[in-house]
Amino acid sequence: MNNNGNTNAGMGLHSNSQGFDKAFLEQLQDVYDAETQLLTALPKMQQAASSQKLKQIFQQHLQVTERQRQRLEQVFQAIGQPAEAKTCPAMRGLIKEAEEIMQKQGQDPEVLDAALIGAAQKVEHYEIATYGTLRTWAQVLGHQQAITALEATLEEEKQADQLLTSAAEHNINQRAAES
Amino acid sequence: MNNNGNTNAGMGLHSNSQGFDKAFLEQLQDVYDAETQLLTALPKMQQAASSQKLKQIFQQHLQVTERQRQRLEQVFQAIGQPAEAKTCPAMRGLIKEAEEIMQKQGQDPEVLDAALIGAAQKVEHYEIATYGTLRTWAQVLGHQQAITALEATLEEEKQADQLLTSAAEHNINQRAAES
Repeated sequence: MNNNGNTNAGMGLHSNSQGFDKAFLEQLQDVYDAETQLLTALPKMQQAASSQKLKQIFQQHLQVTERQRQRLEQVFQAIGQPAEAKTCPAMRGLIKEAEEIMQKQGQDPEVLDAALIGAAQKVEHYEIATYGTLRTWAQVLGHQQAITALEATLEEEKQADQLLTSAAEHNINQRAAES
Repeated sequence: MNNNGNTNAGMGLHSNSQGFDKAFLEQLQDVYDAETQLLTALPKMQQAASSQKLKQIFQQHLQVTERQRQRLEQVFQAIGQPAEAKTCPAMRGLIKEAEEIMQKQGQDPEVLDAALIGAAQKVEHYEIATYGTLRTWAQVLGHQQAITALEATLEEEKQADQLLTSAAEHNINQRAAES
């Protein structure tokens, strides 16, 4: 049903769309679960890494993820909804991939580090796409507080991805090739 | 085990690392399965979309995905390995998410379109991360033919992501908010 008389929605300030608001809420619930899953996976990835630099990146990202999860709770509050999680099958698959990498027997620690970076970058890119969509939807729906919070997290995910690229380029890949 | 005497690896031309070569092969097998899964999902997404522009994007990306899958077969050939798939749990999760979106009853077609774009961008970002890693590993391992093929696919995935962003910004999100 189109409601073309809704000029506020046309200006991107507010919307009367219950359907789009519901889709926004479901995406929030999905990523809330995704961040919670990640909080369990990151310490395992930190433990599995052998490079001190990579261990440090995972440790820092664990703290960042905890903050991002709290930030999501603020977004739920800002839109007047309880903070509830809805199983995120994509993050489940992404973490399964990381676990498969860690469970392999007899692999060189350097190769494991390079593979862990690859797995972590898939997670980061998943989150970049998710927060990119959420931020844009918040703009269209006129959820001002949500925009600021989601934008902050989006930037952090991009930074985390760049940090992982830098770690890979500054000798983790090379050490894997030389191992 | 480090083999610092392997100077070719140090120059990024060749590597004697069986472990890293094996990890590269497994990543190829993973994404080969991911592309195959996507070939089944895209026609369903095309059918579920109501915007003609979005239907067209999914249709075009189906053809691009078919080409990318063939390009992967060329990479397998270039490194002297058979083209084999290894289940990609992440793509399975990503497609499950898209299916959950499509299976919802009674939603506005405009909201469904916006949600389908979100799901597709998660897929694209997953692939951007995967091909980014594969391209970089091919460089370190000195697989020249693979670099060119993987780089071409990486650029196509980035273009597909931009196309979806453009479709969302040029009125699909707005129509969802006004529905």
